[in-house]
Amino acid sequence: MAYRLSELVERFGGELHGDDVVVEQVASMEAAGPHELVFVGDQKYLKQLDDTRAGAVVLTAATVDATSLPRIVSPNPYLYFARVAALLNPPARPRPGVHPTAFVDASAVVDASASIGPLASVGAHARIGANTVLEAGCRIGDGVNIGGDCRFYPNVVVYHGCTIGDRVVVHSGAVIGSDGFGNAWTGSEWFKIPQLGSVRIGNDVEIGASTTIDRGALGDTVLEDGVRLDNQIQIAHNVHVGRNTAMAACVGVAGSARIGANCMLGGSAMILGHVEIADRVNVMAATYVGKSIKKAGTYVGQYPVQSYDDWLANASHLRRLDGLATRLKDLERRVGKTDENK
Amino acid sequence: MAYRLSELVERFGGELHGDDVVVEQVASMEAAGPHELVFVGDQKYLKQLDDTRAGAVVLTAATVDATSLPRIVSPNPYLYFARVAALLNPPARPRPGVHPTAFVDASAVVDASASIGPLASVGAHARIGANTVLEAGCRIGDGVNIGGDCRFYPNVVVYHGCTIGDRVVVHSGAVIGSDGFGNAWTGSEWFKIPQLGSVRIGNDVEIGASTTIDRGALGDTVLEDGVRLDNQIQIAHNVHVGRNTAMAACVGVAGSARIGANCMLGGSAMILGHVEIADRVNVMAATYVGKSIKKAGTYVGQYPVQSYDDWLANASHLRRLDGLATRLKDLERRVGKTDENK
Amino acid sequence: MAYRLSELVERFGGELHGDDVVVEQVASMEAAGPHELVFVGDQKYLKQLDDTRAGAVVLTAATVDATSLPRIVSPNPYLYFARVAALLNPPARPRPGVHPTAFVDASAVVDASASIGPLASVGAHARIGANTVLEAGCRIGDGVNIGGDCRFYPNVVVYHGCTIGDRVVVHSGAVIGSDGFGNAWTGSEWFKIPQLGSVRIGNDVEIGASTTIDRGALGDTVLEDGVRLDNQIQIAHNVHVGRNTAMAACVGVAGSARIGANCMLGGSAMILGHVEIADRVNVMAATYVGKSIKKAGTYVGQYPVQSYDDWLANASHLRRLDGLATRLKDLERRVGKTDENK
Repeated sequence: MAYRLSELVERFGGELHGDDVVVEQVASMEAAGPHELVFVGDQKYLKQLDDTRAGAVVLTAATVDATSLPRIVSPNPYLYFARVAALLNPPARPRPGVHPTAFVDASAVVDASASIGPLASVGAHARIGANTVLEAGCRIGDGVNIGGDCRFYPNVVVYHGCTIGDRVVVHSGAVIGSDGFGNAWTGSEWFKIPQLGSVRIGNDVEIGASTTIDRGALGDTVLEDGVRLDNQIQIAHNVHVGRNTAMAACVGVAGSARIGANCMLGGSAMILGHVEIADRVNVMAATYVGKSIKKAGTYVGQYPVQSYDDWLANASHLRRLDGLATRLKDLERRVGKTDENK
Repeated sequence: MAYRLSELVERFGGELHGDDVVVEQVASMEAAGPHELVFVGDQKYLKQLDDTRAGAVVLTAATVDATSLPRIVSPNPYLYFARVAALLNPPARPRPGVHPTAFVDASAVVDASASIGPLASVGAHARIGANTVLEAGCRIGDGVNIGGDCRFYPNVVVYHGCTIGDRVVVHSGAVIGSDGFGNAWTGSEWFKIPQLGSVRIGNDVEIGASTTIDRGALGDTVLEDGVRLDNQIQIAHNVHVGRNTAMAACVGVAGSARIGANCMLGGSAMILGHVEIADRVNVMAATYVGKSIKKAGTYVGQYPVQSYDDWLANASHLRRLDGLATRLKDLERRVGKTDENK
Repeated sequence: MAYRLSELVERFGGELHGDDVVVEQVASMEAAGPHELVFVGDQKYLKQLDDTRAGAVVLTAATVDATSLPRIVSPNPYLYFARVAALLNPPARPRPGVHPTAFVDASAVVDASASIGPLASVGAHARIGANTVLEAGCRIGDGVNIGGDCRFYPNVVVYHGCTIGDRVVVHSGAVIGSDGFGNAWTGSEWFKIPQLGSVRIGNDVEIGASTTIDRGALGDTVLEDGVRLDNQIQIAHNVHVGRNTAMAACVGVAGSARIGANCMLGGSAMILGHVEIADRVNVMAATYVGKSIKKAGTYVGQYPVQSYDDWLANASHLRRLDGLATRLKDLERRVGKTDENK
């Protein structure tokens, strides 16, 4: 597969400067060869252009004169580069049909263009849409409804009754629809609360490896269109995640939390149950959110790292910060008095 | 399935007020229809009773007059509701027997009433008890012993030699019996410590999706009866978890820690290795426990979230808290001296 | 299997004191019987020697006179014990060959001495080396290259094109080569960045249960020889982990971070993207590393646990630490002035 820069401009816009060369692949500045395209998204990488062996570059108007390489000017070089990368690297598609080693229940409805991989299984009355690929070892429960153009990597599990939209990508080991964690105390033991809801996932969602999404207790757990979840994220029962919200790896969202649209949660962020988070909230990595956030903005609660000795000296005071504050107040009172006594 | 309120009272106790109507399902206040039962566990949800279309409600004696709906009075409406939910929603049971696509070693002993799902595998000399269901893709190692009335959702893995009691529920992706993390340094490389113990799990335990429980190094890793683990929990080798202890998602318990009975660990709590935690200890979410806790009670170590600007202003002082404390002490000395000088 | 102490000394070095007895197994002090070997690595366990029923013990020269048991003196009793444990407990090996229920693509090359377990699958053009064991339900993608003497426990997934060295152990549920988390914002939605790199894993690496390792975006994600990863670790795209570095469970390493050789990361430590960590850095448990660490040493950022009441009193001041510092400075100014006024 190969494209002239002018062909890319025709597809994706932008402005061509220099020779109309052919590119066959995208690459990093360091690894690029003469038929490969690179990009400069940030001024600080500009100087790498002097050493790259790349054949062409995507950059912004502000930096167009920084090189004499064939180049495409775009307001968002990273996005432009991503579009070219996708064009040049369509995912390999297994052939349509049910692999002879897979098990599909007789009552399931699998579109003829879908592909069910080796040793996968599809339960009773499940529906698999057009062009959807379920790779080896996927487990689709009874009555699950999966849309078209989805891709499930090996060993994904979807429990009974869950609904998944179109163009959804799910990575290996992800579990969708497991029971929420609900237990009532009888006075001497736990009694499990049946989890009677389901999981509803919109279109254009991506779910990372080993991410778990519990079904609702009564209503459903919901991911709206365009949500992007990285690996090892935990979404508890009855959580609602708004459109286009993205979460980095290892985030935990506890039961019935409601996350707005267009939010970004950094890695290992942890959201308490029943909390509400407004649209366009950015929670930084390793931050615990124990109360609702009602205003867009960036929020953080990271404890800073130090050398062991420094930490030892400093952290001990955390346990008696209230004492420090009281002593300070007392001093202020006394010094104030001293001032008055003058 | 449908029950009159009087039939429920006969089974589960409580006191009927109003008409002896029929209920077919449980529901939330918002979604309930005329043949559905709701509950009010907390005063603050009482006013929702005015708008619900539910047919009946479970509530406490203190709130019995808040509605004219048919109602059952119980000291614990949440538990009562859970019992009714379980009665009305028995889990679907696959038919007994080994699915033709499953592989069961000839030396394994599978009770005739058990169900081994599609493409599951059961190793040599394993034993599977009466009415136990192993769903699609479960992997049961050699010599594993699983009791009766258990339910393992798809793609659960149990390593060789582990023992699991009766009525144990394990969710998809959970791994039981993987090697503990033990390495000895030779001076130039790591030498793996063979993990020769096993995992022993009692009765009435539930284990969440993608939770991992390592086998012991020499002795066993133990979960006592009634333990409840949510998703993505890590239990390291030789950990001992006491009866009825419940852990929310993403908790990590490091090697040889000993957690008492009836404890509750909040989401993402992290317990250091070799630590001992007494019975009835409640550790709040996102708290790191780096030392033993000898007394029942609630413990916490959460760093509070703030807006980015506020955090920036405040957190910088954490790195020099010791300096602040020294300056305060010095001021106290000087102001004290000033007082003496008067 | 049984060895005289003198035979062990011949293999592993050390110095025999007392009778040349036979040992058949290793054990803990409490559980050991007369044909079992124990070890004392730390002085504080010395007194347990009085009660043990063990047949022999490994200890250091400094403690050789603490018991009259048959004993082997070694500078590193823990390592010595581990070597004996490995000798006495070779892992059970399934017989070579492809299990009849497994699926191996016709173009894959599986060494005749390798073992492919029940219901496992191996993709096109994959290569599986000599004596490697893939247990039940493993999913090996197209073009994957796995070396010799590896052991993959059930339900491991390796995506297409990844490369794995010799003597690599991977535990159940681990996912190697899933897509890195890369999304460009179009102004109205996320556009997925194709992840075109791969994962390269060296020799003698161990990877824990449910650990996930993403493939690189352009270049590769790399684990060098001897790396040891515990369970539920997340390694993002383009991370580079140096030789012999060990990470405890639940660690998260964000994209393009570069971790040096011989580092140790404690449980739940979290490393920010693009950060560089020098060789021989020890990061303690539950610590967030948000900036590069250029010097070997021990680093920590743990928030201390307290009783709920104490925490409530203290933590509130964290949100206005800057105010406290300002007031302190102000007092210093005033008290200083007072001194000058004297």
